Amino acid sequence: MNGLMMQSQLILTGIMNHALNNSPDSEIVSVTQDNPHFRYSYQQAFKRVSQLAHTLKKLGANKGDRIGTLAWNDHRHFELYYATSCSGLVCHTINPRLFPEQITYIVKHAEDRWLFIDPVFMPLVERMAEQLDSVKGIIVLTDKAHMPATNLANVYCYEALIESESIEFSWPELDEECAAALCYTSGTTGDPKGVLYSHRSLMLHTYGVLMPDVFAISRDEAILPVVPMFHVNAWSIPFAAPAVGAKLVLPGPKMGCGETLSSLIQKESVTIAAGVPTVWLSLLKHLRDNQDTLPSLNRVVVGGSACPWSIMAEFEQKHGVYTHHAWGMTEMSPLGTYNARVPKNLPNEAAQALRLKQGRSGFGVEMRIVDPEGNTLAQDGLAFGALQVRGPWVCERYYRSDKSALTTDGWFDTGDVATIDADGYLTITDRTKDVIKSGGEWISSIELENFAMTLGDVAEAAVIGVAHEKWAERPLLIVIPAEGKKIKSSEILAAFKGHFANWWIPDDCVTAKKLPHTATGKVSKKDLREIYADYLWPHEATV
Amino acid sequence: MNGLMMQSQLILTGIMNHALNNSPDSEIVSVTQDNPHFRYSYQQAFKRVSQLAHTLKKLGANKGDRIGTLAWNDHRHFELYYATSCSGLVCHTINPRLFPEQITYIVKHAEDRWLFIDPVFMPLVERMAEQLDSVKGIIVLTDKAHMPATNLANVYCYEALIESESIEFSWPELDEECAAALCYTSGTTGDPKGVLYSHRSLMLHTYGVLMPDVFAISRDEAILPVVPMFHVNAWSIPFAAPAVGAKLVLPGPKMGCGETLSSLIQKESVTIAAGVPTVWLSLLKHLRDNQDTLPSLNRVVVGGSACPWSIMAEFEQKHGVYTHHAWGMTEMSPLGTYNARVPKNLPNEAAQALRLKQGRSGFGVEMRIVDPEGNTLAQDGLAFGALQVRGPWVCERYYRSDKSALTTDGWFDTGDVATIDADGYLTITDRTKDVIKSGGEWISSIELENFAMTLGDVAEAAVIGVAHEKWAERPLLIVIPAEGKKIKSSEILAAFKGHFANWWIPDDCVTAKKLPHTATGKVSKKDLREIYADYLWPHEATV
Ligand SMILES: Nc1ncnc2c1ncn2[C@@H]1O[C@H](COP(=O)(O)OP(=O)(O)OP(=O)(O)O)[C@@H](O)[C@H]1O
Ligand SMILES: Nc1ncnc2c1ncn2[C@@H]1O[C@H](COP(=O)(O)OP(=O)(O)OP(=O)(O)O)[C@@H](O)[C@H]1O
Ligand SMILES: [Mg+2]
Ligand SMILES: [Mg+2]
Repeated sequence: MNGLMMQSQLILTGIMNHALNNSPDSEIVSVTQDNPHFRYSYQQAFKRVSQLAHTLKKLGANKGDRIGTLAWNDHRHFELYYATSCSGLVCHTINPRLFPEQITYIVKHAEDRWLFIDPVFMPLVERMAEQLDSVKGIIVLTDKAHMPATNLANVYCYEALIESESIEFSWPELDEECAAALCYTSGTTGDPKGVLYSHRSLMLHTYGVLMPDVFAISRDEAILPVVPMFHVNAWSIPFAAPAVGAKLVLPGPKMGCGETLSSLIQKESVTIAAGVPTVWLSLLKHLRDNQDTLPSLNRVVVGGSACPWSIMAEFEQKHGVYTHHAWGMTEMSPLGTYNARVPKNLPNEAAQALRLKQGRSGFGVEMRIVDPEGNTLAQDGLAFGALQVRGPWVCERYYRSDKSALTTDGWFDTGDVATIDADGYLTITDRTKDVIKSGGEWISSIELENFAMTLGDVAEAAVIGVAHEKWAERPLLIVIPAEGKKIKSSEILAAFKGHFANWWIPDDCVTAKKLPHTATGKVSKKDLREIYADYLWPHEATV
Repeated sequence: MNGLMMQSQLILTGIMNHALNNSPDSEIVSVTQDNPHFRYSYQQAFKRVSQLAHTLKKLGANKGDRIGTLAWNDHRHFELYYATSCSGLVCHTINPRLFPEQITYIVKHAEDRWLFIDPVFMPLVERMAEQLDSVKGIIVLTDKAHMPATNLANVYCYEALIESESIEFSWPELDEECAAALCYTSGTTGDPKGVLYSHRSLMLHTYGVLMPDVFAISRDEAILPVVPMFHVNAWSIPFAAPAVGAKLVLPGPKMGCGETLSSLIQKESVTIAAGVPTVWLSLLKHLRDNQDTLPSLNRVVVGGSACPWSIMAEFEQKHGVYTHHAWGMTEMSPLGTYNARVPKNLPNEAAQALRLKQGRSGFGVEMRIVDPEGNTLAQDGLAFGALQVRGPWVCERYYRSDKSALTTDGWFDTGDVATIDADGYLTITDRTKDVIKSGGEWISSIELENFAMTLGDVAEAAVIGVAHEKWAERPLLIVIPAEGKKIKSSEILAAFKGHFANWWIPDDCVTAKKLPHTATGKVSKKDLREIYADYLWPHEATV
């Protein structure tokens, strides 16, 4: 017997309508190359979204067509999100930081029909143009006055295309399973693979990230996504903000610029900001150098890689800002876990330990850890194994793949290694590919790195497994000294004693000038392993 | 083209699993007749839910069967919610405050197979027993020691039935459209009608009420539903609390007792409580009489009927408690609108006016107001018309009805009359059936009542339309004086001058000892109209 409730479809058009009916005057603030102080209301934004939908129709885009974007976080990119998805097209956000070969691969694989690009990416597109067979034309996200010169054919100006279109569009009644957005994983661990989000998955994910113990954004707030809109839909903030009517502050191409971030936060009274650890490093440095502070800012969400305690401590002690640690992935839309405020009565040390964990699963995400034979391990905070997940916003298969990405019993293997404690707190200890297998036992590279980064004079640290005659693999610690500092290997290694089992302690510590990073700003262990492929252990390992 | 995300079903079993994995130790505190201080963890609760599911199976309950409950808010009722729904049965909560004829009608209409009842309702059930043909037996929600004596056959003891069952149950993988719960509207406006909730609608509603500008319950909080579990699933708090891992405090049969409520709030550090206006009147009176206060309490949700300002003011000024006004209905699961905290910088008067509105629609609810011809009216805060709604947790048709309850274009007519302003704030001005039609124009009874209740010496007030020779209907004001006070009609009516258009002002004011109430504690306008059917206007109306 079925329930007798309305068969409403969960589609992104619902967010648009909700904002129009409840928060028409809430603002979007946007930094673009042609106007660093752009500002309008949701009502104005969605009028332009209608204009853009008309344009897309005139360009001949058909239901299901992929529309590629190469763009920073600004209001035009926001307009693209809604105009494509709500009219039945697929918004395919592309990471411009990838190598041109990877971008070409992705555009070809997705068979993008049109590319919407920021003017700054014109040279990049020119270089690739010959190979982009599926692409019918390029629309440059700017006004006539700022159009870049180019020899390419079929290049259009965004503002010129939309300006004369109607500000009303009759949005189709889509099925909630319909594809809405496409995002490729960066390829840290292989060829880029596309994740094809449905309207349903994005809507449920929006509810999920808005939960009280996750983003919990209220209408009175202002949110600054410093995570790019080409990176898992900027963690879905462009959906979450209009869903609650919060102000959305988009930093455009200035994502890495501490000064712009700090001034945006101050001027727009930003209360919550989200991004990977590195962007906070540059913001904090700017604040330190200028003895500046951020009175409106209440909390910061950090994810994408493990957040060092130094960032949390500086935010809290100097700026009264609470840092929430979160874990997720492209395949999870991205919400996996979130570390909500820990209870106030917790002693400092316990609070720090808890806050460094990746948090608890969002309502809608199920997690389990399994051993190599697929047996589920205990949730005791000690057992660690391959982390598998399940839920309505988890990927079932990659785009254009004809086989499921799931285990035979229906779980998605994240490629991460983790522990889960009795309270559901997740601790990522490694990637499956990065875990160090010493004498048949696993050593977590992340825990060793986290510890190394708490040591004075260490700016950055990475641990990789290097081939070893006796133990198959042993951990090698690579450190970047803080500016102007020298590091003594033996001292660093000595500091590990007592904090880890002896056999976990790296056998050597080497110094480097910088670490290789991926296009999403993470340390590339793959590259590190190549660099140190010929490394030779200085002496017989002591374990 | 469809998205490629997992086909996870939105079923209530997900809440159970989420609580078990993330908040196994969070507590449920429960007042029952056999134990006023019962307390256990979600983990323990869901073990008993498994035991109960085995019992239901042994009783021969089949998929889709309706299981009736006549019970207050306690842990056994909570167990019933999950054991029935998650095993594919339908939890049918019945309002014991209805007349026996209405209850008989409802049980017969729903064809309930088993009735689970609090011991206190045994005499009531005995009176109706002969007519309850569909019911195979009665399970009394208590332990052996507290079983009431009865001559009825097929009466079982809850604790005795479940005690020896396994604490593990293999929950079926239900389809999200599957029926989960059934609740009849009280019949203020006609015969009781059943609303059949699906797993999907209840899950989405749970996300909806947990939004940052709605209940926003965090894991650290404790919530006290003073709204009965037979009244639209206690506004879905029994789903929302375990979904976030908050403590759930269930007041059992003590819902109307100010002393119990105040002591529960204090002892259990309740942070949020929810209920209709009348329960707050008795709580506030108790606090006043005992010069007591509620330090832990942060906010109170008031809905079901319009909340008088006096309640909001006393909660805020004496107890630092914020009162959120909410509007909803059985047919909406019940969330329609919620009045989130108004901006801090709003002047007092504007804040008060805003807070008396019913709030903004939850994310997932669409609203519109229409005139008698079905034309959509402006969202300008002035135009008022029939309020219609749409969304995934709105009823499509009533149980066992073969026709849709919706308008031809797919909206549900709430039976309420309202205005909506440009910011989406709803103001309920009346029920369609209660609105006063004077000379072809509508007068809102609720606005007049709200004003009357701000006048000194008026404890309660109601306005109804009474037949009038010239104007078809004119408003009559009925007031209950505050204890020991006398009221002068002419003074009361004079006070309306300047606050309303002249033709809105009631033509007479009469005093009564008390107002008739419905089974859900609302003033019964139907009864009032009957009582004053023969009322004669004292003089020619002045308009
Ligand atoms: N808070 C965190 N702590 C530690 N690791 C994290 C955290 N958040 C994310 N990660 C890592 O990032 C991964 C998800 O990143 P993302 O989907 O952006 O691409 P990627 O996995 O880096 O790239 P690819 O899958 O192409 O190799 C997770 O699987 C996890 O390894
Ligand atoms: N905050 C509020 N302010 C004013 N009225 C409210 C409020 N909340 C609920 N109501 C009224 O209560 C109604 C919903 O109540 P409910 O579903 O419990 O049963 P009922 O409508 O009273 O009974 P029946 O439909 O059987 O006559 C709404 O339609 C509205 O008229
Ligand atoms: Mg990955
Ligand atoms: Mg009703």
